[in-house]
Amino acid sequence: MATDQTAAGRLAAVAPTALNQLFAVDAARGIRDGLFSAEQLVQQCLDHIQAVDGDVQAWAFLDPEHALKQAREADLKRREGRPTGPLHGVPVGIKDIIDTDDMPTEDGTVLHAGRVPVADSTAVARLREAGAVIIGKTVTTELATYSPGKTRNPHNPDHTPGGSSSGSAAAVAAAMVPLAVGTQTNGSLIRPAAYCGVFGFKPSFGLISRHGVLRQSPPLDQLGVFARSIQDLALIAEVMIGFDENDPATRPLARPKLLEIAREEPPFRPWLAFIKTPMWDKADQATQEAFAELTDAIGGQVEEFNLPAQFKDAWDWHRAVMEADLARNYAAEYDKAADRLSESLRGQIERGRLVTAVDYNNALDKIPAVNRALNELFDNRYDAILTPATTGTAPHGLASTGDPVFCTLWTFAGMPAVTLPLMRGEDGLPLGAQLVGRRGEDARLLRTARWLVSHVEQSLQDSPA
Amino acid sequence: MATDQTAAGRLAAVAPTALNQLFAVDAARGIRDGLFSAEQLVQQCLDHIQAVDGDVQAWAFLDPEHALKQAREADLKRREGRPTGPLHGVPVGIKDIIDTDDMPTEDGTVLHAGRVPVADSTAVARLREAGAVIIGKTVTTELATYSPGKTRNPHNPDHTPGGSSSGSAAAVAAAMVPLAVGTQTNGSLIRPAAYCGVFGFKPSFGLISRHGVLRQSPPLDQLGVFARSIQDLALIAEVMIGFDENDPATRPLARPKLLEIAREEPPFRPWLAFIKTPMWDKADQATQEAFAELTDAIGGQVEEFNLPAQFKDAWDWHRAVMEADLARNYAAEYDKAADRLSESLRGQIERGRLVTAVDYNNALDKIPAVNRALNELFDNRYDAILTPATTGTAPHGLASTGDPVFCTLWTFAGMPAVTLPLMRGEDGLPLGAQLVGRRGEDARLLRTARWLVSHVEQSLQDSPA
Repeated sequence: MATDQTAAGRLAAVAPTALNQLFAVDAARGIRDGLFSAEQLVQQCLDHIQAVDGDVQAWAFLDPEHALKQAREADLKRREGRPTGPLHGVPVGIKDIIDTDDMPTEDGTVLHAGRVPVADSTAVARLREAGAVIIGKTVTTELATYSPGKTRNPHNPDHTPGGSSSGSAAAVAAAMVPLAVGTQTNGSLIRPAAYCGVFGFKPSFGLISRHGVLRQSPPLDQLGVFARSIQDLALIAEVMIGFDENDPATRPLARPKLLEIAREEPPFRPWLAFIKTPMWDKADQATQEAFAELTDAIGGQVEEFNLPAQFKDAWDWHRAVMEADLARNYAAEYDKAADRLSESLRGQIERGRLVTAVDYNNALDKIPAVNRALNELFDNRYDAILTPATTGTAPHGLASTGDPVFCTLWTFAGMPAVTLPLMRGEDGLPLGAQLVGRRGEDARLLRTARWLVSHVEQSLQDSPA
Repeated sequence: MATDQTAAGRLAAVAPTALNQLFAVDAARGIRDGLFSAEQLVQQCLDHIQAVDGDVQAWAFLDPEHALKQAREADLKRREGRPTGPLHGVPVGIKDIIDTDDMPTEDGTVLHAGRVPVADSTAVARLREAGAVIIGKTVTTELATYSPGKTRNPHNPDHTPGGSSSGSAAAVAAAMVPLAVGTQTNGSLIRPAAYCGVFGFKPSFGLISRHGVLRQSPPLDQLGVFARSIQDLALIAEVMIGFDENDPATRPLARPKLLEIAREEPPFRPWLAFIKTPMWDKADQATQEAFAELTDAIGGQVEEFNLPAQFKDAWDWHRAVMEADLARNYAAEYDKAADRLSESLRGQIERGRLVTAVDYNNALDKIPAVNRALNELFDNRYDAILTPATTGTAPHGLASTGDPVFCTLWTFAGMPAVTLPLMRGEDGLPLGAQLVGRRGEDARLLRTARWLVSHVEQSLQDSPA
């Protein structure tokens, strides 16, 4: 995090041949101040991709010439004194279920091979407005569900990067790009971010438009971002958030000042509620121990909080909604070529077809109920919930993308969630700590997260070990 | 309609013992100007109810003393110079599925007998803010579905008043009150208004909050109003419309100026699209002939328009959504005492339990699709759709409330609809002409409706017959 360093200090310290390692806030500043060009930055990202992507395989589509062309246009625009946005010249990777009008969007299935959208998704359009270079499309699992793509974990290629936003997490972790975009309908963003040891942020439901994004389950689908610092998460999320008449879940509200507030000191020392959730037994021994150490390091600012018993049904409510919606939204693919879908997706669709409207709508009604129940926790005392991001470090093997079970409840509730690469497992792989905020209080969550990171770093420095 | 008369002229013409016959705009003005008191107005309404309600049976709850108390408070407020609203002192009847904190709300079922809500519905709260006297609760069918209540048609007590807003329509038709409120999930407002020969208006979906109203089907439930003129519809609807954070279907938009715009002359002569719908064969001979005469009377400003073939499925989409939602929202009643529900409602619930989430959501997706298709019609030429309100006049007998089939499509689409008592059947009973507007263009619909009424009156006066 290097929260004690100034941007200028960080910029002076970086090797001129390692621009790809910059934080996005510094990359944007370096371009703005003329320290280097967007073309230089993008070229170094492309060089690094060339060097390391053979092992990682993060990209579904990458056309270096097209990326450089965007970078040169950004540089020209700056030289001509035309207005530039907060991401001017900064390269961003886009999950390959998010439409781009200049690149294919193939959704991780052979059934959509060669698909080129006619228009940008709203999310990509907003990034372009902010000046971002859309460098390429990152690998997704099959139709953003569970069947893996080709990507490997940058920390160890024998391990999964997690999914479904596999390539976005891996590309940021491997310093191929400072920023990437993903989605989460269950644990598709927080899980790969945690497995790959980067920061991941899924804002509150309805903040980022899903228009032009593969539709899995409208009540659950949420976009989010990957970066290597909390400030970078705030920087990119802030430009993507906003009302879109094409996504009925978005609201015409003032855009939260994520970056400004994330940079502030909290007015009081934050209180965290450590929630093991009914799924705690699924966390492996090393994870349970790592959380014991983490809560020790946090000290008096964290307290364990037990969810009321009825929360255990939330995983069933989530499954009913998600599978019924997969059955509907992937009906065309299933009807055309079920044999070219994975067995796991076929199973989800077939179960989803049996969900009744009564059960589906009863489950949806639980979303506000869960939020009301958890809001009491925020009202009474706590700034954020601390909880595992995953059941452990990235599993060995590439046949699975791991278990989303520690994300399900928060995704269902549409609460903002961030994962912080604060720990490591016994295998040396990264382990994430997830913080979850009150729905709609995204800036406060990032501010609390930034406090936690510096508090834990300080606490570890002070400890005698 | 008497559009050529001034309010002052109309007020001067009314007998001082027939205040119950006043239009609401005139009643409000009379009180405002001190020509009579709210207490006098309400007393005369109560006297008239006493005289005629034995035959009509419009009321589920009526406490004359409580109504008079509200009227006296309104008079006191005016005498003290405190601010008054547009309905100050005007009595309104409220369908007995809409919560009132000072009267029972029994939903037309013995299962809810004695139920007294703890709070007003948002709709009633808005009426009280506007100064209205909530005079009593009007009869609804069983849980606002098809099984009739006790109300009879004021034009002939051997005929149904229609349903489910039976009492509201009958009370306005019998001059017991100038205004009443109802709801429509299929044809529960337009149909009884047409059968009872009054004006009925169901605004666009999402304009009037459903908070505190019996929930039948959230994607379909809509509130509306009954009156004896279009201006009165505009007057009461305007105060009820508005954003309510407790009803997610409402939006924080500027309140449409219904009354002001309804009073204006259209800038151009309106064009009407006469749409028979795929249900035309269900209209009886007399209705088909009446519409032939009506379109003749309208002359060159109306053209027949045929809906594309796929619209015929809209009735199935509507049924899937409504029955699945009845199954869910009336599950407690069914599980507790299915034997005390009507056979028809049991059948709806049992069918509704079988609807899959896939079919339900596919049907919901058709709502914007239907609107897009019909918007072309408004874009290209037409100000409103002219279509039957019902299959004929109020059927003989009280065992059924008639067929909602000519309302289903427009309710499903959430488009604003108004019924105008322009015709009579061979049996002498009223027959309504329904006008349907573009979703969200409610004021324009009322303006067009007002033009149509005066145009037809003029045309009939000019004709040699």
